[in-house]
Amino acid sequence: MVEMRKPIPIGEAVLRVMNHKLQGKIEYVSINESFGRYLSEDIVATSDVPHFDRAPYDGFAVRSIDTIEASLTNPVEFEVVDHIGAGAVTNKEIGPFQAVRIMTGAQMPHDCDAVIMLELTQSSERHGQSFFTIKRSYKKGDNVSFKGEDAKKGEVLIRKGTQVNPGIQAVLATFGYAKVPVAKKPVIGLFATGTELLEVEDELVEGKIRNSNSHMICAQIERVGAEALYFGKLPDEFETCYQAVKDAIHKVDLLITTGGVSVGDFDYLPAIYEKLGAEVLFNKVAMRPGSVTTVASYENTLLFGLSGNPSACYVGFELFARPIIRTMLFTKQPHLRKEKAVLWEDFSKANPFTRFVRSQFSVLDGKLVVSPSGVDKSNIVMSLAGANSLAILPGGTRGFKKGDLVDVLLLEDHIGSEWPW
Amino acid sequence: MVEMRKPIPIGEAVLRVMNHKLQGKIEYVSINESFGRYLSEDIVATSDVPHFDRAPYDGFAVRSIDTIEASLTNPVEFEVVDHIGAGAVTNKEIGPFQAVRIMTGAQMPHDCDAVIMLELTQSSERHGQSFFTIKRSYKKGDNVSFKGEDAKKGEVLIRKGTQVNPGIQAVLATFGYAKVPVAKKPVIGLFATGTELLEVEDELVEGKIRNSNSHMICAQIERVGAEALYFGKLPDEFETCYQAVKDAIHKVDLLITTGGVSVGDFDYLPAIYEKLGAEVLFNKVAMRPGSVTTVASYENTLLFGLSGNPSACYVGFELFARPIIRTMLFTKQPHLRKEKAVLWEDFSKANPFTRFVRSQFSVLDGKLVVSPSGVDKSNIVMSLAGANSLAILPGGTRGFKKGDLVDVLLLEDHIGSEWPW
Repeated sequence: MVEMRKPIPIGEAVLRVMNHKLQGKIEYVSINESFGRYLSEDIVATSDVPHFDRAPYDGFAVRSIDTIEASLTNPVEFEVVDHIGAGAVTNKEIGPFQAVRIMTGAQMPHDCDAVIMLELTQSSERHGQSFFTIKRSYKKGDNVSFKGEDAKKGEVLIRKGTQVNPGIQAVLATFGYAKVPVAKKPVIGLFATGTELLEVEDELVEGKIRNSNSHMICAQIERVGAEALYFGKLPDEFETCYQAVKDAIHKVDLLITTGGVSVGDFDYLPAIYEKLGAEVLFNKVAMRPGSVTTVASYENTLLFGLSGNPSACYVGFELFARPIIRTMLFTKQPHLRKEKAVLWEDFSKANPFTRFVRSQFSVLDGKLVVSPSGVDKSNIVMSLAGANSLAILPGGTRGFKKGDLVDVLLLEDHIGSEWPW
Repeated sequence: MVEMRKPIPIGEAVLRVMNHKLQGKIEYVSINESFGRYLSEDIVATSDVPHFDRAPYDGFAVRSIDTIEASLTNPVEFEVVDHIGAGAVTNKEIGPFQAVRIMTGAQMPHDCDAVIMLELTQSSERHGQSFFTIKRSYKKGDNVSFKGEDAKKGEVLIRKGTQVNPGIQAVLATFGYAKVPVAKKPVIGLFATGTELLEVEDELVEGKIRNSNSHMICAQIERVGAEALYFGKLPDEFETCYQAVKDAIHKVDLLITTGGVSVGDFDYLPAIYEKLGAEVLFNKVAMRPGSVTTVASYENTLLFGLSGNPSACYVGFELFARPIIRTMLFTKQPHLRKEKAVLWEDFSKANPFTRFVRSQFSVLDGKLVVSPSGVDKSNIVMSLAGANSLAILPGGTRGFKKGDLVDVLLLEDHIGSEWPW
């Protein structure tokens, strides 16, 4: 007999998952290994930047008071008493009408308070000594980058939960973060269930197919910022699956299975949840594909029962597993980024369920447009390969037309969205 | 004396780099390590998909010829002679008015040519034998996924140069690519020059700053898909730098240096290129920041002399080094993806040079909008941390207003652009 399941709305399903606050853990990694990781603490300026007054240009450091009388008709001459590059500090005292030749980034001599750009001077030499003249006056602070001008010690520069990008690497280095506080990658366990599954290196035989879901989900797990722990594939046998799931749970932060969640005669996951005593949060969602996605809570973790169908599996992971994983990475915007885009093809058939169409979005004259990335049958893996987004077509009695503005979820985006969408 | 350099247009500089066709190399990696890599060959279907006729739903496989007479007033009864799940194959011969209970994904019995969905049947049992009746007829092929329906053996599925995403992982697994042909990561050597540089773990001292460029560029190199080989930092001393650069060139596919390319008294890179006999492709570009970016060709490789200024360094890498590296990854669209976006702030000051403004783009009602990600002074690393794009403000005599449509380069995008932009 077919068990009757009551589908719940997508938003309700997401909330039931997200209500389980799974706690992220922190660790410290070398700055050299921090690219792409998620910060587990706010990054604070450990010093002023610059941490000394410095020259932003090549030129001459002077005391501005000595330049007051300079004008086109009254050139003023300075004696060059030192010559410093970035990283050097003069040990000379700079007196009236004396100057230091100074390079970009070098520290200002303590007695000086202005820099004259090289191009605005006229150089000369007498008795082996360099001089230059200027024809205008300078104010205190002219062409000086002051201590603390760019950042003040103690200022929060980057928020916890942000993914480390190249610019953040520069900030971390500038402030001496040799060890970087990041979210420990949650470990996501994975089983593929299905007697029909072969491994990737196996020859094809009648009735069997290669296990593609595990490879796909491992990559999705990696993309989201976590670590995949693949336990292997399981045949459609209740006891084998039950023991395997039970043993694996305690080794991981979340456990994902693919297949076995529908109502077919060899779909054992529902019975496994029951025997474990896991609380099923939902086992049917009003969406296509992925309607049989099941999530159960068990001993402070969650069991994700994703469909064995590749597209349904993919969408189930992105909608329900991704945000709770990102939460463990301290991200404030854990959900797929949602934006509006112009639909670039007709979808004339109505569907009572909300559809997630594997799509390619692009930008046309500054506007997001979205087209299906392949034939939209839920068993076609090829359209996943070309997808960088999921177009959302709400369920109802009408189809959609080219030109309609629809919501689109960006799969490769680094920013994410908050909830509710 | 200040050396006078003639700035060349940005597009001309890009072309001078890209005219050096550096050849990518290939290698085979395990499918488990292929996520994020770039394919070095087209991926071809090694079999039909499905590779056998299969049931797309749970139901009963029958011979359609036996259903012809079925109607609301004339139910037709079938005897269920076998029961198979996905991965199983029936070894029974299916005769007239016989059927096989079949699960989603299972192989069709050879004698059957249609599947009746479970919901449309009425089951019964007599003497321990299962039967069902139907009240409508079926045509040959109804509810059957045919061999080769999704993909035909030999079909090109994914083009060379594509980055492996989760969907592509699924395709690779489906077609038995246990080893995946990918571009070998080009090795990009890196020196930071500058007597002012401290390492990230060093305490700050007067006049010196921590080396942030190396960490930033290593992350940029990783983001672009290559491998960074950091050789360390060098003081502003001609002989030391010359020997270090000369020794390093043969260990890498490209060599990047930061700092020392301007016209300051301690900028030795120009003299190093000269002594090496390297051909300088350009040493001044009509752009801000990054105008002193220098590229030289030497013995089948390129030397990138990026500015020591973090922002100039960042932009120089993305505009000039990124595309030639991506070419070695076989990408057809090696340049930063360029799109139109609405400027979200006034830039009232005109500038004779084209500016690349570190920006954050976002989407507002389906339209790309772009705002500066921080104070736009070229020595401020903090604005790089928040940048996901570079807004292009063409040089000229006028400023730009909020609402103007400008070009924007997307830094985190996976697609890229062809040339000319």
